Amino acid sequence: MKIEKQYFTYDASEKGQQLDSGLVLSPVTIAYETIGRLNHSRDNAVLICHAFSGDSHVADLYWDDPSESNPGWWDFMVGPGKGIDTDRYFVICCNILGSCMGSTGPSSINPETGKAYGLDFPMVTIGDMINAQKQVLAHLGITKLHSVIGGSVGGMQVLEWCVRYPEMIKSAIPIATTMRHSALAIAFNEIARQAIMADPLWNKGDYYHSSGPGLGLAVARMIGHVTYLSDEAMRRKFGRKLQDKEDFSFNFEADFQVESYLRHQGSKFARRFDANSVLYITKAADYFDLADNVNTRESLQDLRGNRSKFLVISYTSDWLYPTYQARELVKALKRTGQDVSFCEIEADCGHDAFLIKDIRLTNLIRGFLDGIEDA
Amino acid sequence: MKIEKQYFTYDASEKGQQLDSGLVLSPVTIAYETIGRLNHSRDNAVLICHAFSGDSHVADLYWDDPSESNPGWWDFMVGPGKGIDTDRYFVICCNILGSCMGSTGPSSINPETGKAYGLDFPMVTIGDMINAQKQVLAHLGITKLHSVIGGSVGGMQVLEWCVRYPEMIKSAIPIATTMRHSALAIAFNEIARQAIMADPLWNKGDYYHSSGPGLGLAVARMIGHVTYLSDEAMRRKFGRKLQDKEDFSFNFEADFQVESYLRHQGSKFARRFDANSVLYITKAADYFDLADNVNTRESLQDLRGNRSKFLVISYTSDWLYPTYQARELVKALKRTGQDVSFCEIEADCGHDAFLIKDIRLTNLIRGFLDGIEDA
Repeated sequence: MKIEKQYFTYDASEKGQQLDSGLVLSPVTIAYETIGRLNHSRDNAVLICHAFSGDSHVADLYWDDPSESNPGWWDFMVGPGKGIDTDRYFVICCNILGSCMGSTGPSSINPETGKAYGLDFPMVTIGDMINAQKQVLAHLGITKLHSVIGGSVGGMQVLEWCVRYPEMIKSAIPIATTMRHSALAIAFNEIARQAIMADPLWNKGDYYHSSGPGLGLAVARMIGHVTYLSDEAMRRKFGRKLQDKEDFSFNFEADFQVESYLRHQGSKFARRFDANSVLYITKAADYFDLADNVNTRESLQDLRGNRSKFLVISYTSDWLYPTYQARELVKALKRTGQDVSFCEIEADCGHDAFLIKDIRLTNLIRGFLDGIEDA
Repeated sequence: MKIEKQYFTYDASEKGQQLDSGLVLSPVTIAYETIGRLNHSRDNAVLICHAFSGDSHVADLYWDDPSESNPGWWDFMVGPGKGIDTDRYFVICCNILGSCMGSTGPSSINPETGKAYGLDFPMVTIGDMINAQKQVLAHLGITKLHSVIGGSVGGMQVLEWCVRYPEMIKSAIPIATTMRHSALAIAFNEIARQAIMADPLWNKGDYYHSSGPGLGLAVARMIGHVTYLSDEAMRRKFGRKLQDKEDFSFNFEADFQVESYLRHQGSKFARRFDANSVLYITKAADYFDLADNVNTRESLQDLRGNRSKFLVISYTSDWLYPTYQARELVKALKRTGQDVSFCEIEADCGHDAFLIKDIRLTNLIRGFLDGIEDA
């Protein structure tokens, strides 16, 4: 069974749907993919929220992909008989608002001008992303989620779902995430943004007619990429190994493998991702604060009326959202009377550990979802 | 007693002095400052090695500085009656080769062309920096150092002194440093270099007739600056405090104080430092490897004939050169029969802790130097 990317477009003006900034963005298109079947009681839906640079293609192959080379970013977790079993669950994954992988974002055409939005795209929050996903769920006839699951910025969406629409959430699995960005996390995002905006080809966000700020975007990605790894993993993977040479070059070529690797990651990302989307999504992540945020948004208090099951997962070597931040989240959730399990997984590969096949994570998620089933 | 910056120039060709790359750089000027008096037996000299972006102005005021606003980067440590007591010791601090604070570097005039070297400046190593400093010591009539002291890249110089010229070193205090850069440290340096080289105003290093790559250099500094801080210190200092506003701007202005702070640090640095010097000095730091390095250089084995006293100091919150790396250094030194003391200082302010006034560091260094005196 193969899948395809689908698109749902709605008129936010008509629905009176404002962004957290007070502005209205309309129309909104959300790219999404589904795997499995929604059952008759419509209670087996699992929403998976992707991380910063991810997309709706969470697992499986596209039916029209002859190369079959793109099995999705969480294919080891999602599928028949896997941790999130698509024989039992109807899995949905939406590309986030503000991204560039099919959903409306700064690279989309602004109907008012006929040109790409660029910086005319309004700032969006994690809450705005959730509101857009809710429209997709409504379109699919889903009013309750068996579970909402995601890592990193996906984990922020999980938490935001729980405070915005607690009545819709039976259970939630926030992974490698935080209630709010620390100054350190904001700092790295800000440096990435500055790297993009320092590139003259960024041109104040108006570059869709040209090649765009590829060099600045590559630097931004290198910064991000390092924060997703760990000292241990980098020592193990690269150490001080030289790249295709026996001695130093004594120039500014890449001497060390880690240099080549980062340059490759940077330029690869610059070819596939939109620089303005990096600006908007990093800002949304920086703004995110589960407990206290902008004037218009709900707070953790809104959970009090509801009791969901939570499985909070952190990784020992994640220094972007370290375990102490997961513990803060666990405490905050418990204070509102939620049913919270917490697991810190020992892993040396840093923040991105949840994207790396690991039977422990699979078993944890499978067991937790089974428990919901029984409840 | 006030001081002045001095300059010593020598002809490296005449001396037959090659760089580790095999090239010859000549003439070489080293800017240096001295505080205190060299005694008659010429055995009270203490060499202080500055970190990456430092200079020869380690302490005291310039006699011709009417504002008296620039007391030196380690003024709390160096002076009459201070941790490094200039009533007893003759303190020397040289600006490193490759820098832009008076010593020969890529912004210096290439006598062959009459223009700034730019990328025609040869790659220099930490060992090359030490060789240049040795010329200054010879000029001052110093053949033995009571101690050589420095933090970060200054600490690498300390260690390099000990392997290159062990017979000249009575004692050494490497602080917040490492025997060799980890992949993580190389990664951050490489990203900083890429940020500079991505700026079109860098112009392959040939920008001395124009304004230069100010934006790229600012991004490079922001990256460096974050690695000098710590998660804890940034939470304490900035947290999620907003900059001069009560709510989010919903645009790409600096919302958070940490963003303004980093932007300020970046642009301030871009005004005072040369972008090419960042490239050369970071590369020298990446190349540095105390135990095994380029073909021409000495190794840790060369310490075996000599016995010096070492005080190795690390900081609990230094994640650029974490304590485990200091412990590796201590073990390596002990294996060669050195007399090594080690102290990890509990401090939450990260790698740059040694630049922040702390009576514990002062007392440690004072006590250690006193011990040498008694020996």
